[in-house]
Amino acid sequence: MVNETQHACSASSSSRSDGGSSSGSESSKDNSRCSTPVLDSDRHERLREKMRRRQDAGDKWFSLEFFPPRTANAAVNLISRFDRMGAGGPLFIDVTWHPAGDPGSDKETSSMIIANTAVNYCGLETILHMTCCNQTKDDITGHLQKAKRLGLKNIMALRGDPSGEEWEEEVDGFNYAVDLVKHIRNEFDDYFDICVAGYPKGHPEAESYEADLRHLKEKVFAGADFIITQLFFRPETFLKFMKDCQAIGITCPIIPGIFPIQGYHSLRQLVKLSKLEVPQEIKDVIEPIKDNDAAIRNYGVELAVSMCRELLDSGMVHGLHFYTLNREVATTEVLKRLGLWREDPRRPLPWAVSAHPKRRVEDVRPIFWASRPKSYIYRTQEWDDFPNGRWGNSSSPAFGELKDYYLFYLKSKSPREELLKMWGEELTSEESVFEVFTCYITGEPNRNGYKVTCMPWNDDPLATETNLLKDELERVNRRGILTINSQPNINGKPSTDPIVGWGPSGGYVFQKAYLEFFTSSEIVTALLKVLKKYELRVNYHIVNVKGQNITNAPDLQPNAVTWGIFPGREIIQPTVVDPVSFLSWKDEAFALWIEQWAKLYEEESPSRMIIQYIHDNYYLVNLVDNDFPLENCLWQVVEDTFELLN
Amino acid sequence: MVNETQHACSASSSSRSDGGSSSGSESSKDNSRCSTPVLDSDRHERLREKMRRRQDAGDKWFSLEFFPPRTANAAVNLISRFDRMGAGGPLFIDVTWHPAGDPGSDKETSSMIIANTAVNYCGLETILHMTCCNQTKDDITGHLQKAKRLGLKNIMALRGDPSGEEWEEEVDGFNYAVDLVKHIRNEFDDYFDICVAGYPKGHPEAESYEADLRHLKEKVFAGADFIITQLFFRPETFLKFMKDCQAIGITCPIIPGIFPIQGYHSLRQLVKLSKLEVPQEIKDVIEPIKDNDAAIRNYGVELAVSMCRELLDSGMVHGLHFYTLNREVATTEVLKRLGLWREDPRRPLPWAVSAHPKRRVEDVRPIFWASRPKSYIYRTQEWDDFPNGRWGNSSSPAFGELKDYYLFYLKSKSPREELLKMWGEELTSEESVFEVFTCYITGEPNRNGYKVTCMPWNDDPLATETNLLKDELERVNRRGILTINSQPNINGKPSTDPIVGWGPSGGYVFQKAYLEFFTSSEIVTALLKVLKKYELRVNYHIVNVKGQNITNAPDLQPNAVTWGIFPGREIIQPTVVDPVSFLSWKDEAFALWIEQWAKLYEEESPSRMIIQYIHDNYYLVNLVDNDFPLENCLWQVVEDTFELLN
Repeated sequence: MVNETQHACSASSSSRSDGGSSSGSESSKDNSRCSTPVLDSDRHERLREKMRRRQDAGDKWFSLEFFPPRTANAAVNLISRFDRMGAGGPLFIDVTWHPAGDPGSDKETSSMIIANTAVNYCGLETILHMTCCNQTKDDITGHLQKAKRLGLKNIMALRGDPSGEEWEEEVDGFNYAVDLVKHIRNEFDDYFDICVAGYPKGHPEAESYEADLRHLKEKVFAGADFIITQLFFRPETFLKFMKDCQAIGITCPIIPGIFPIQGYHSLRQLVKLSKLEVPQEIKDVIEPIKDNDAAIRNYGVELAVSMCRELLDSGMVHGLHFYTLNREVATTEVLKRLGLWREDPRRPLPWAVSAHPKRRVEDVRPIFWASRPKSYIYRTQEWDDFPNGRWGNSSSPAFGELKDYYLFYLKSKSPREELLKMWGEELTSEESVFEVFTCYITGEPNRNGYKVTCMPWNDDPLATETNLLKDELERVNRRGILTINSQPNINGKPSTDPIVGWGPSGGYVFQKAYLEFFTSSEIVTALLKVLKKYELRVNYHIVNVKGQNITNAPDLQPNAVTWGIFPGREIIQPTVVDPVSFLSWKDEAFALWIEQWAKLYEEESPSRMIIQYIHDNYYLVNLVDNDFPLENCLWQVVEDTFELLN
Repeated sequence: MVNETQHACSASSSSRSDGGSSSGSESSKDNSRCSTPVLDSDRHERLREKMRRRQDAGDKWFSLEFFPPRTANAAVNLISRFDRMGAGGPLFIDVTWHPAGDPGSDKETSSMIIANTAVNYCGLETILHMTCCNQTKDDITGHLQKAKRLGLKNIMALRGDPSGEEWEEEVDGFNYAVDLVKHIRNEFDDYFDICVAGYPKGHPEAESYEADLRHLKEKVFAGADFIITQLFFRPETFLKFMKDCQAIGITCPIIPGIFPIQGYHSLRQLVKLSKLEVPQEIKDVIEPIKDNDAAIRNYGVELAVSMCRELLDSGMVHGLHFYTLNREVATTEVLKRLGLWREDPRRPLPWAVSAHPKRRVEDVRPIFWASRPKSYIYRTQEWDDFPNGRWGNSSSPAFGELKDYYLFYLKSKSPREELLKMWGEELTSEESVFEVFTCYITGEPNRNGYKVTCMPWNDDPLATETNLLKDELERVNRRGILTINSQPNINGKPSTDPIVGWGPSGGYVFQKAYLEFFTSSEIVTALLKVLKKYELRVNYHIVNVKGQNITNAPDLQPNAVTWGIFPGREIIQPTVVDPVSFLSWKDEAFALWIEQWAKLYEEESPSRMIIQYIHDNYYLVNLVDNDFPLENCLWQVVEDTFELLN
């Protein structure tokens, strides 16, 4: 046993380094050790590797298919759906390619931009569909280059529906999906993982089932990594197809496409498009209840669950692909009943990671964007390097400006009317603003009976963790300390803690108490006097919209405020209070007063002028209590400030 | 008050980055934030900045002058003296230039190599003297280039004593120190801090005191940063000189050179060389006691203390420079009586830092070399980048081989005879080796009555911290777990803790328990069985001299085992257990059995064969208990192993 090398190590540990060849950043590439600590191996694997690892571990998985929306509003909703359904733990999602919808454009409804948003802003492993017929080589290469640039790593290579009835093969054109597969491998080598479609009943245009199987084999041998099938209605259809594939030498993963019937009309439409026949036993059930949507959906769920069970029980199926039709309820229900929906409260890092490959090593962010991760990703999208291990040592350039507060993936989920109900149709004083903040914290309805479920700085209800501070936050907001971000101190809780835990199990997480708020210059003047007493314990940054900046931070160094210690790993410190980024954040934080709130009201209206006054005159303050093992002193700092004022 | 910008921030925080120009490692240079966390600002300052900061803070300091030794043995002793006197906190040391001793060569006794050792291996801010007369421009440039390459940053520019009685100026040669100052500034711009000599009584060869002052002014205006004076016997001599300097416009720091009289003969010799006259009142005291060394030294200390007090009390003197004559006692005594000797038990990092400018950012090292920091520095001397923040992310190339275990700065302080007394004139069995290890741990004399104060892996007595584990270590060494490195777990002690603390005050330090030992394959087999029970808690690496390697470390990732959390800073994690470096360390650790121990005995002797057997057959094991908040389980692991064996 002793002679067994469990982990072979190829490091030429005793060879003297050549000073000349190992200089600068080049040497890291020559280095035999892994170049970065791996907190979450998922982030470092390609989709096909993830698939293989899950299969090897006997760990069943699912994936979700969406189509691009038609309107900007629908895009906002779809992104929220990505966030919600992403929480169930899909191995990937895929976004279909709609040739009619300008799929490669920069429009917020294009396939390309929706897939980009899923990867970068929702952190989802994503496959972008791409069709090839009726397109030039240059068009296709352009699309693929753009996809690569946006961080997409997986392509579903399809022929697409030829336009016009009388389709004829083009010489040297892209006539079949296999041409696209070959093109991708020729032009992009092994960069993309490639998926192709399989037809358990044979492609409707194929000469025969057997001929179609041969086409599929060609696609796989041309470089496809796995197969997703067209929908089917009987498990035996898929299982036979799979055996037939294996019989002719197709060994890559074949993922059954599952279509939970969600309504009479959607079924009919899909059947028409796919040229499939609905089995008589299903028609017999559906026809009598065709006007009862709920009944049909319930039946669809039953049917899907039983089919999926049979597939999984066969031992041949490791993952299930769901045609969601952009709807949540039926698919989620099926997944929950199958036990595949795993809303894992444990997070790899305290913030939502992006799936862009260039952000693979990113593991430090400023705390300021904690509630606006998509804005953070947007403002750092041009960076070539991302902070890893430390913030101060990162080679990250300056933040991009946030000019457009209405980008669809940053936009509030609530329409203007709802926001007015929450934040006040009419503001009469600064105190009426204090009330809005207080209601958001307490969850109590405002004076007009509406609950305040979001704020300009936070589009979601209060985080569970912030709830730990609810009483204190309520007290200070009532008095004009308008909090927008906070965290309690934590002195070593298990990394599996349901509220504050993150990272792999067996570790311990820590935090320094943090409080960030807007407040008046009168309060700031008193606060600064009080802070003198806490000089060695509390770090502060105080800034107004003009950039006047007061801080006691040493040498503009970042202060790590969240960190974790894990077995066999280096320290991870995912959030910092960074004095330099704070000045970028303050531009955004102040602008949100105007962009999200003031602009709800008429120009020159008293409500708008109150928000404008706050924007022009208040300060944005952040406080860190460095003594994390002791009781959080920040509340005392605030109490002392109020006392001084009285 | 609010409008006051206490820390101006020049970051152009809202300008969008140009993706093109900010790629790769270049962008870090464009970055407005500080490029690395600053744990210890001393490491980032030039000598002249340190001097200014200490002066501004009203913080008095001292420096120490040494000359290069004549023999290799004396070099070993001088390096130990650097370590001991370095502990008192000199602002810098300086090493004189002996033209007759091949001062720029690679000999272990050359000025260049001694200064190099002081900087790199002892971590001391160092000034290298350099004389210029009778040397070619190329020689001098060569010396300066070499000094720069070795990490030396400060030069004391001197003329040197012209050889021969009849010295004549050379045309275009280096005739005066000012020529050297100009040359350094011409060829090396502002790279070096330059010091020049001042003569409180005027240079003996100067036409007049006034003429000499003008020469000094020339040297300063040519680019010297500060002045160290020749020795003098009366404080008023220096104070007058200083006022005269200021009167003619010399504003840089002027540091008085203090010579504590240590003996009759050394005084006479120095006086002869420097052409100074000893004042009558001193002669009157010394002549009657000239044969009583102790009495003269006591008088010299008294005299120096009183003169230094007067200088410091004048308010004009901020630092004192001591001519030590390579001796410790008198200077240390003077410094202690003046209250300038500050043996600060607090360490900036848990290991001794090097003062080479390219190691300025280094703040992570593998734990393996904890007791052999000079060997670590030697084996990484060719690296261009040093790990900062994280180990795994560093761009450090492979370790250099340690071929010469007898380099003077790595050599044991004890001669062969002493080592034989400690480690046994004759070994009879593996158990007699166990005894040596046990005696080293307990501090008890061995069977021949000698204390074991060093081991091949550790040239110093047991660290205070290791003492915390003494009882457990004794128990396991007796039974053949031959420990060479260990640390207890620590769950957040103040950074000012006298035993385990390090880093700035106000922080908290943490450790995972660590144990490293040699042991037999029989014990390893049992240990591996026991470790299965601790799989999730204990990381292990087990390797033999042939490199057979057994580990449960995930993906060869480093495990941080010492870290600190400080106010307003990112996390510092100065020691890691790195699986890759462990394989370089094991080469060294195994070789020390042979190089330091086996070679004490005759070839083919039984003693030598016992050590050779251990070298060939034992394993080197390291264990980390990841659960630092719980009681250290490593002792239980060892107990369980012994239980299994019985």
